[in-house]
Amino acid sequence: MHSIRFRVDLTPGCSIGPGKIQLLEAIARTGSLRRAASELKMSYRRAWLLLDEINHSFVEPATLATVGGAGGGGAILTTFGSELVQRYRAAARRIDAVAKAEFGALAAKARSEPPREGRPARKKLVRARTG
Amino acid sequence: MHSIRFRVDLTPGCSIGPGKIQLLEAIARTGSLRRAASELKMSYRRAWLLLDEINHSFVEPATLATVGGAGGGGAILTTFGSELVQRYRAAARRIDAVAKAEFGALAAKARSEPPREGRPARKKLVRARTG
Repeated sequence: MHSIRFRVDLTPGCSIGPGKIQLLEAIARTGSLRRAASELKMSYRRAWLLLDEINHSFVEPATLATVGGAGGGGAILTTFGSELVQRYRAAARRIDAVAKAEFGALAAKARSEPPREGRPARKKLVRARTG
Repeated sequence: MHSIRFRVDLTPGCSIGPGKIQLLEAIARTGSLRRAASELKMSYRRAWLLLDEINHSFVEPATLATVGGAGGGGAILTTFGSELVQRYRAAARRIDAVAKAEFGALAAKARSEPPREGRPARKKLVRARTG
């Protein structure tokens, strides 16, 4: 099995998925939103908006601004932000195991290449499958 | 916790997610791709393309065309198609339990409304979070 992606919608206004978690992890690694954005090859604007969404979808923030130091201001995860990342990664490990158990047998039947365009058989299938 | 959505990428050319599974379930229920599309409020063209993708991403088809009967031709799930749906739903139940266990505690901290635009505090946060 290749991979499984998941998104949790906690409320209509609050969801967590791989993009947000990757951003928080990159902030934890680099100590800065700007460097996190650059590491993820994301525009600073997009990273900023994503982080703003994270910080406003919970009643407490996931990151805090830091002031001073060699590179000027930066950003760090709050305890809550670290908890978000840890719980997502723990869930990901368990969900991965579930997916392997349920879909492992199906993987043998999966084609390894994306379906090609313009297969000779396609025209026939159009008619066969209409209903 | 509200809900969890997941997509399994079995190979680069083969993935299963909620949209494809819902389509297969609707075909099983209605006995026809056209009625399945209509039930899901999806264009027939989009439903047909999605089903074509499903049937070409595995080495065996998930549906078969049926001929004749009161409403003309229809579509039914193959044994393999039923297995796909059952495994996805079994995985969904287990993944739901994982998500509840990991994110249940976080749900209490999630805001129930989507973040509003133009909060008064926003301007200040732009500067505070730059780094």
